[in-house]
Amino acid sequence: MAKGNKYGTHRVIEPKGTLPQPALKISNDTTIFDNEILIDVDYLNIDSASFTQLKEEAGGDIEKIKDKILKIVQERGKMQNPVTGSGGMLIGKVEKIGDDLKDTVDINVGDRIASLVSLSLTPLKIEKILGINPDIDRVEIEGKAILFESGIYAKLPEDMEATLALAALDVAGAPAQVKNLVKEGDTVLILGATGKSGLMCSYMAKKMVGTKGKVIGQARNHARAKFLRETEFCHEAIIADVLNPTNVLEETLKANDGSEVDVAINCLSIPNSELSSILPVKDKGIVYFFSMATSFTKAALGAEGIGKDVTMIIGNGYTKNHAQITLDLLRESKTLRTIFEQKYKK
Amino acid sequence: MAKGNKYGTHRVIEPKGTLPQPALKISNDTTIFDNEILIDVDYLNIDSASFTQLKEEAGGDIEKIKDKILKIVQERGKMQNPVTGSGGMLIGKVEKIGDDLKDTVDINVGDRIASLVSLSLTPLKIEKILGINPDIDRVEIEGKAILFESGIYAKLPEDMEATLALAALDVAGAPAQVKNLVKEGDTVLILGATGKSGLMCSYMAKKMVGTKGKVIGQARNHARAKFLRETEFCHEAIIADVLNPTNVLEETLKANDGSEVDVAINCLSIPNSELSSILPVKDKGIVYFFSMATSFTKAALGAEGIGKDVTMIIGNGYTKNHAQITLDLLRESKTLRTIFEQKYKK
Repeated sequence: MAKGNKYGTHRVIEPKGTLPQPALKISNDTTIFDNEILIDVDYLNIDSASFTQLKEEAGGDIEKIKDKILKIVQERGKMQNPVTGSGGMLIGKVEKIGDDLKDTVDINVGDRIASLVSLSLTPLKIEKILGINPDIDRVEIEGKAILFESGIYAKLPEDMEATLALAALDVAGAPAQVKNLVKEGDTVLILGATGKSGLMCSYMAKKMVGTKGKVIGQARNHARAKFLRETEFCHEAIIADVLNPTNVLEETLKANDGSEVDVAINCLSIPNSELSSILPVKDKGIVYFFSMATSFTKAALGAEGIGKDVTMIIGNGYTKNHAQITLDLLRESKTLRTIFEQKYKK
Repeated sequence: MAKGNKYGTHRVIEPKGTLPQPALKISNDTTIFDNEILIDVDYLNIDSASFTQLKEEAGGDIEKIKDKILKIVQERGKMQNPVTGSGGMLIGKVEKIGDDLKDTVDINVGDRIASLVSLSLTPLKIEKILGINPDIDRVEIEGKAILFESGIYAKLPEDMEATLALAALDVAGAPAQVKNLVKEGDTVLILGATGKSGLMCSYMAKKMVGTKGKVIGQARNHARAKFLRETEFCHEAIIADVLNPTNVLEETLKANDGSEVDVAINCLSIPNSELSSILPVKDKGIVYFFSMATSFTKAALGAEGIGKDVTMIIGNGYTKNHAQITLDLLRESKTLRTIFEQKYKK
């Protein structure tokens, strides 16, 4: 087989000239090019915003969700939710490595890996859906996927179960970016602190701010706030309605001696929380949107509308060493690992 | 009248608890609160992405565009395009200043001002549309608008015509942000360099990079590239199709001695150009999206999909002193002023 494009453009069917992620349809032919890797897939971890949308559209009916997933993959050649545009990731065994890559990659046929590029651009063919676990957005399948030369992946670690590693790697970009963004002494607000990425970000932020900074975690009710306090990942837990920006602002000010915060990190997976992220941040501060439910225009116009001079950053799922950084958090914190084992590894 | 909320939440009709920008409907009652300002509006400058959408939906028919604008404002109490979510800005005379603001604002009744907050959150009542100039996205009206306490505005300068100042202020956030972002010696790619914000950003970027840096401006055809070269705002002009990321990458590499750039600035007003902005940037570089047509998920997943460790920033229409910084560019550069007078001031 010939060499394909590094970014996979050779598999784009429609529209021509685009890359696989924005493409409407890509080829999921399982005959690989010389610079591709064929994966025998075990699990898909559907992106949280996507799975929430699928669940709502299907009225919670698992069979309808299955049908919808099969239909999407058949139409697009990839598991990209047409409404949210997002994907997720997968776990599988390396089945075949293209000739051009054999000497350069650090994996072998038979290795178990997690793909760290989004399903929204990964050629995928599903033979059969074996089961769906809606509590953790996980779909067990028989099928094949293809990684391009530019594709990133992580060999699954031997000191933890695959499903645990996958749950963590799914949000790997978030804590790794927090490590880059948050500085010693910062005050940080984490919206959605009790969720999967929120817990990771809270833990990392608390490490980064040191003894002089403060991490404030938002929870949506008393039970969640109690849980968050028990983790000790945040200095303060606040209860606030993220669809009510002034409520979020007021609760943040109460928890921060009347001051706005240096950094806000949005780890929610629900829409319309842009202003709740912007309003509590001081001028020249940073708002980091990790949520895939973020609207670009709502953020841009929201900040302008209230005259806030803040830097708003689009969460990039990739940053250097993000898989390592994230897996190390599970090794470092027993509390974090226990929560992940109980809540996300099923 | 009582005092309203600083951010205008007292005028939100639906849904309750939100701020005026994300709200579906706000009150455009022209009786002002004590901390509001009433404006007698002369012109609306519709946001470029919004106007393009309105024009396309109406098939270019001016009367249909008028009807659509009237319908939107009647339904929402503000001129916010339901498809793009974006607004624009306005010029008008100060008609009334609320009692609470009289001593704190630096404007008087009768002053001519431009609002620097988006129309997407500004209460607006249109009595009559007097005319539309589709070449410059401008709508002449009879009507009233209201500015909240947090609203920002600029008194129109006396050394240039109102319509010229408005054209520049409409994109004021862009060059002011470029001033903050771009450093001496940087290589910078401007996508959409021949448009209104693109010209401003190119000029500012060239100032900032100094003699050791390089500014590369993208144009869509030979005529546009020729025009861009004549301005001398960029060191290099490239012709590339922004819907074809690999084409943009290749042309950028050619113009930059084979290297990726430090910063890319997206000044386009068309969708699906996220990857064309990300692909030509080096790892740890910056992508600045000023275009309101940017999709959050396409940017986030696009960068992850190609394994690019770049910082992606959401264009904030507001940054400190942005009006002053932008108007000063017109004073400084005769070329820029002449282009703005010929193309945007009609």
